[in-house]
Amino acid sequence: MASTIFVINPNSNEAVTAGIDAALEPLRIPGGPEIKSLTLKEGPLGVQTQADVESVTLPLAKLAQTLEAEAGAFVIACFSDPGMHLVRESVKQPVLGIAECGILTALTLGQSFGVIAILDTSIPRHLRLWGAMGMTDRFAGEMAVGLSVAELADRDRTLSRMLETGRRLRDERQAHVLVMGCAGMAAYRDHLEQALGIPVVEPTQAATTMALGRVRLGW
Amino acid sequence: MASTIFVINPNSNEAVTAGIDAALEPLRIPGGPEIKSLTLKEGPLGVQTQADVESVTLPLAKLAQTLEAEAGAFVIACFSDPGMHLVRESVKQPVLGIAECGILTALTLGQSFGVIAILDTSIPRHLRLWGAMGMTDRFAGEMAVGLSVAELADRDRTLSRMLETGRRLRDERQAHVLVMGCAGMAAYRDHLEQALGIPVVEPTQAATTMALGRVRLGW
Amino acid sequence: MASTIFVINPNSNEAVTAGIDAALEPLRIPGGPEIKSLTLKEGPLGVQTQADVESVTLPLAKLAQTLEAEAGAFVIACFSDPGMHLVRESVKQPVLGIAECGILTALTLGQSFGVIAILDTSIPRHLRLWGAMGMTDRFAGEMAVGLSVAELADRDRTLSRMLETGRRLRDERQAHVLVMGCAGMAAYRDHLEQALGIPVVEPTQAATTMALGRVRLGW
Amino acid sequence: MASTIFVINPNSNEAVTAGIDAALEPLRIPGGPEIKSLTLKEGPLGVQTQADVESVTLPLAKLAQTLEAEAGAFVIACFSDPGMHLVRESVKQPVLGIAECGILTALTLGQSFGVIAILDTSIPRHLRLWGAMGMTDRFAGEMAVGLSVAELADRDRTLSRMLETGRRLRDERQAHVLVMGCAGMAAYRDHLEQALGIPVVEPTQAATTMALGRVRLGW
Amino acid sequence: MASTIFVINPNSNEAVTAGIDAALEPLRIPGGPEIKSLTLKEGPLGVQTQADVESVTLPLAKLAQTLEAEAGAFVIACFSDPGMHLVRESVKQPVLGIAECGILTALTLGQSFGVIAILDTSIPRHLRLWGAMGMTDRFAGEMAVGLSVAELADRDRTLSRMLETGRRLRDERQAHVLVMGCAGMAAYRDHLEQALGIPVVEPTQAATTMALGRVRLGW
Amino acid sequence: MASTIFVINPNSNEAVTAGIDAALEPLRIPGGPEIKSLTLKEGPLGVQTQADVESVTLPLAKLAQTLEAEAGAFVIACFSDPGMHLVRESVKQPVLGIAECGILTALTLGQSFGVIAILDTSIPRHLRLWGAMGMTDRFAGEMAVGLSVAELADRDRTLSRMLETGRRLRDERQAHVLVMGCAGMAAYRDHLEQALGIPVVEPTQAATTMALGRVRLGW
Repeated sequence: MASTIFVINPNSNEAVTAGIDAALEPLRIPGGPEIKSLTLKEGPLGVQTQADVESVTLPLAKLAQTLEAEAGAFVIACFSDPGMHLVRESVKQPVLGIAECGILTALTLGQSFGVIAILDTSIPRHLRLWGAMGMTDRFAGEMAVGLSVAELADRDRTLSRMLETGRRLRDERQAHVLVMGCAGMAAYRDHLEQALGIPVVEPTQAATTMALGRVRLGW
Repeated sequence: MASTIFVINPNSNEAVTAGIDAALEPLRIPGGPEIKSLTLKEGPLGVQTQADVESVTLPLAKLAQTLEAEAGAFVIACFSDPGMHLVRESVKQPVLGIAECGILTALTLGQSFGVIAILDTSIPRHLRLWGAMGMTDRFAGEMAVGLSVAELADRDRTLSRMLETGRRLRDERQAHVLVMGCAGMAAYRDHLEQALGIPVVEPTQAATTMALGRVRLGW
Repeated sequence: MASTIFVINPNSNEAVTAGIDAALEPLRIPGGPEIKSLTLKEGPLGVQTQADVESVTLPLAKLAQTLEAEAGAFVIACFSDPGMHLVRESVKQPVLGIAECGILTALTLGQSFGVIAILDTSIPRHLRLWGAMGMTDRFAGEMAVGLSVAELADRDRTLSRMLETGRRLRDERQAHVLVMGCAGMAAYRDHLEQALGIPVVEPTQAATTMALGRVRLGW
Repeated sequence: MASTIFVINPNSNEAVTAGIDAALEPLRIPGGPEIKSLTLKEGPLGVQTQADVESVTLPLAKLAQTLEAEAGAFVIACFSDPGMHLVRESVKQPVLGIAECGILTALTLGQSFGVIAILDTSIPRHLRLWGAMGMTDRFAGEMAVGLSVAELADRDRTLSRMLETGRRLRDERQAHVLVMGCAGMAAYRDHLEQALGIPVVEPTQAATTMALGRVRLGW
Repeated sequence: MASTIFVINPNSNEAVTAGIDAALEPLRIPGGPEIKSLTLKEGPLGVQTQADVESVTLPLAKLAQTLEAEAGAFVIACFSDPGMHLVRESVKQPVLGIAECGILTALTLGQSFGVIAILDTSIPRHLRLWGAMGMTDRFAGEMAVGLSVAELADRDRTLSRMLETGRRLRDERQAHVLVMGCAGMAAYRDHLEQALGIPVVEPTQAATTMALGRVRLGW
Repeated sequence: MASTIFVINPNSNEAVTAGIDAALEPLRIPGGPEIKSLTLKEGPLGVQTQADVESVTLPLAKLAQTLEAEAGAFVIACFSDPGMHLVRESVKQPVLGIAECGILTALTLGQSFGVIAILDTSIPRHLRLWGAMGMTDRFAGEMAVGLSVAELADRDRTLSRMLETGRRLRDERQAHVLVMGCAGMAAYRDHLEQALGIPVVEPTQAATTMALGRVRLGW
């Protein structure tokens, strides 16, 4: 029976997909659903603007449809959950978004959640998502590391900015749990959690977990 | 100076555009901004599914960009506000959506607002919009007339369903004001308002009003 | 047909009315509704205390009633929207408040709105308004310039305080759009917007825009 | 030391004041604060319209000020809490409103509260109050008995309508506790509570209780 | 390494535990975490009253502590999430509650969620949970089947009541997804979902899914 | 008739009970209900952890039941309201919690309330309470003095920390009224209020006030 979980990176950055793929390793259980990470070839190098978001929705749905015969579930691995509702409408399998599942998982780990975004300009879009999700009551705040796609390649600087942003969310906004507002950065999670002393959610792992259950349960 | 208000119908149904155009007549003031209604040629016959919504976002932005030299403002005349945030990002002019402006205007006319939708399947999408807009506190409810694009051509039946839906929103959900959850049906507004005895907002008129002010004020 | 928009300044400060009147100039369209600004003679020099608010409600309603024959709509040009619901009950024309319309318009310009108040003591009253309006979900914060009516006459100081307050709302509260919490200060709007780099709403203009549409549309 | 609790009925209906006065009897404790009920002579026969509400605010504040030497606290005994914030600003004593205290007390008696209003036209005004009070999350609904001041004199009919309204709030809106949305009807409370099987709050008693504590505590 | 997921039924009803255990079967993956269901011996026959809830919290924590050496995660399989925060404080492993995870999972399946409770008297307690979880914005409603522990043994009657309750939540409250407000009834899920035509969440499966991911991920 | 108000300190710290008892003195009115403060012998020295909270719920209910013959009402004098819903279920008298009543009373004294907690680790638990109570809309923030039970014995240090915490809530979070998030510290109230210039609620006094009214009113 078709049961592969396809984790689709809507941007065309293969390094991000590689980061995602590594993050999924612990969820690959012998005897469990296969988990495959894919890059959306048509995607932009990073999903940063609203144009980036909109440009990937139809290609994502088309890609998901081509994978239906093999698929048990889909995960959209971009923190704006682009095209999530379209893909849900387009295929019969479960479709999970990493922003949605990242936040929902965070709610089991702390009372008030904070989000570490990459860019300031994404925050209003994310706020619309939290509003649409009905998540405002437990939202502590969101702040951005403020690094471009290119700058994110500098891992020390990225980690240092994430730590600083997480610290401000914890201390100034009283966040009890943090969500990493990006895909492909699972490698930083442990370090962040240990340094900040509060739980940190890696959203692609959170979403793939929920997909895993859905595939096994058949609903 | 460029000051035309372009009211774009994202579906390709010229009858809808004609209905929109007629609705805008009172807002055409000698000496005021020109108001032009347009049909998005690439649009579906009706914007009903999430696929319909997503299919028009990029074409809408492209169309708006081609009109920039002449434009003072844009109105997106579809009650799911498709592409609104993309068009805002794409052009420098004010961009208003009819769902957004319809609700906001309703808030000046009654304490709790109800929405008359066309299809039940649009309601979850609209609820996400009201959530993203932060409008849940004054939301009385939304109910659908349940007619297809084809059936909407039967005007008596449409009006009768709208009346019945509006009556239920008023009586069962205690809505104090209603928003027509569609474009191109301004012709029913007066009848609805008189028969139901509570204010009824025609959203394209509401949005174009706000666009008119923005054009004149230059902000 | 009666179609004049009366924009009533509930305080008796003619300088404020003059500021309001100047702000309305762009909305005066040849062939469009006449827009007249009026001073409520019985009003206090400034509407600052709750006593000020309450003292103008009945006179406002009475004034509106005397203007009914000529009126197409009324705008109450004080940021506490004093008497708005009473005037709505008292006359058959549309009645818009500048706090209400200022906030509603801001919601089309940015995800989280901040308010620049004049006095700290007005903030709890405003918070009750935002609560009654159901606007808490997108409210970033409100801060006051802290200047008396007399001190507001010093325009450089006023602008400087407004800039400082707006900067704090933007940087500390992550406001994406600001509403000027006062009438008669439209002259500062452009400067604020340019200096702060985020949209700034002048509320009397916002309310008169909505009144203009309502007059033209006849609902 | 001044410690009298003045419970002011803002309407000029002495029968209502008599009902209020009887309701306060259990709170008159030997050695405790004196509790006096008063009628606002300038008040309308009933506070039903927004005009009624606005007409009593200044007289209420003036009356409270004339009683300051003797007063320990003030209760405004009208379910729209007219002038509450003005009186708070006008005197140094605690000022409690019966709508506010009725709702707050209800929150200690059941998870979702319903309100039995007198007139449908008061409901939007009340909803603005619940919004300003931040009470929407636990609000089950509000329904009106729909009786005029004159009709309320027929006690059997009034009780029967209150029972029917309370039953609908309990069964259709799942209210776990009810607040009587009026002053001077304490005589019905026991009957309602017994017949409906859920707690019923008499708001003048609730507010006077809170006033009693404030007077004794001196804060 | 310790990785067993202990799913603890806080009531002492072994039939419920058996139902839970059967529900977990699909989540038992060769090579994945072992999943064991347990009965809390000290528990009441059903967790119905607040006394039932409180009576199991300390025993649950004690039981969890005795299992720490073997445990990878804990699931509290009672829809009031009794003792969840205590167990979280008491052990170092992830602790998931089925009410919490049931609701969170439902949010990925439909915009407005309804809950099928067993008893009316549990609804206020659940509402407090939804409030504490910040879930009110997407809450459509909760209704009870109204059957005692004994009556639940009649499976046809139970299913019939669940269908009727689910139908009302879907039709009267516009729920787009339903959560079964109980443990041990997974056998009804498919039938409910097919008959009602909207997704139905079995909460123990939802929570165990999230536990599974957490065990594998090590956070 | 049984009318004693039992104010139960759920911790076994007699010094706290003594502080509570002193705070109740003003509410002891000749001819009014007797007010007795009690220490829960089984309680921990302080209610700080979730384990502390859970450990007192059953003993509290048992104690209340043994006092039923004499009791008019019960007050649970711990700012986490431990066992409140259980005691409500266990006895027929009114049961009030000091966190609940402290917040509700604060809402009559200022628009946005802040809470001075003792420990940071209690804040997430309190946030769940405010959520369950539906109090998030007017919540300004909560901050802790960060002192252990032992350190609280140093009264100067405690007062100094409370002042500093209150100042931050007032200045950084714009709280208009503060609630002391603890029992037995009434002695600091006046000083805090005077030094901070905003109202400060002592929650045991607030709850006992509400109990007093309920006893007198018989509902």
